[in-house]
Amino acid sequence: MAETFQHGPMYLEDLQPGMRFRAPTWPVTETDIIRFASEFDPQPHHVDPQAAKSSFFGGLAASGWHTAAMIMGMAMRSDLQMSGGQVGIGVENLTFSKAVRPGDVLSLDIEILAVRPSRSRPGQGIFKARWRCTNQHGETVMEITPTVLAQTRAGREQRSTETES
Amino acid sequence: MAETFQHGPMYLEDLQPGMRFRAPTWPVTETDIIRFASEFDPQPHHVDPQAAKSSFFGGLAASGWHTAAMIMGMAMRSDLQMSGGQVGIGVENLTFSKAVRPGDVLSLDIEILAVRPSRSRPGQGIFKARWRCTNQHGETVMEITPTVLAQTRAGREQRSTETES
Repeated sequence: MAETFQHGPMYLEDLQPGMRFRAPTWPVTETDIIRFASEFDPQPHHVDPQAAKSSFFGGLAASGWHTAAMIMGMAMRSDLQMSGGQVGIGVENLTFSKAVRPGDVLSLDIEILAVRPSRSRPGQGIFKARWRCTNQHGETVMEITPTVLAQTRAGREQRSTETES
Repeated sequence: MAETFQHGPMYLEDLQPGMRFRAPTWPVTETDIIRFASEFDPQPHHVDPQAAKSSFFGGLAASGWHTAAMIMGMAMRSDLQMSGGQVGIGVENLTFSKAVRPGDVLSLDIEILAVRPSRSRPGQGIFKARWRCTNQHGETVMEITPTVLAQTRAGREQRSTETES
């Protein structure tokens, strides 16, 4: 599977299964973990470093939804930039493999799994990807398989014609 | 399926498939949408009300990961309070059904789908739930089926004995 470093916005036709994309790393701070969890997941193991020591996690850990959000943050800043953006329509599977800790530095590997034109939306298509997030030790912390709506190049040409006429 | 309004922390043995739990509603503001998306999903349709008008969404919409986080926020404040908290181990399926807009008020319905003791972790067990999030019009905006690790009452008695001895 070839690594792909493509620049500039892409269309559905540019994607093929097996293509891979990289993203900038994402440092995780205790402040960020507590701030996110205070709002969305205020369990002691996510918001209270002292109480977290006697929890299942044995220390402060990021909420899994925070990790998912950080993965999205990396994906949106990755080499995979789609013209018109990426609209998620679902996630087939999401696994929390390992706790994310203060001081961790996360990386994201994006692999295209499947690509097809949309049956119901002309000018658009669907691709499925695997987002594998690892920490600085190379351990997988989370894997997500999103299904994403994207524009086709054929659709762009159609849209341009409509604008001109 | 009976509605269940139970108070106080519960253990795995208290859960049965078909039980349902409620959560406080969650109001969605434009400020929150832009703040979350600026950090984790900075696409024009999530961060720029003007640019959003000509996007797929036709107006500002919350990042799907923001909606997922708000759902977690409601679940953590729901009637379903587990002793020792809830540790997510995965999500089987997550569907984005409808855009979440500034001014929406979200509700969450939690239904227990399956419950079983853990094979590898004595004193713990796993339950699967369906979290259905609706807006103020009763339209489903997102559905998530999480798998969650929780403590058993038998495990609590075991843990108490260990502490005493």
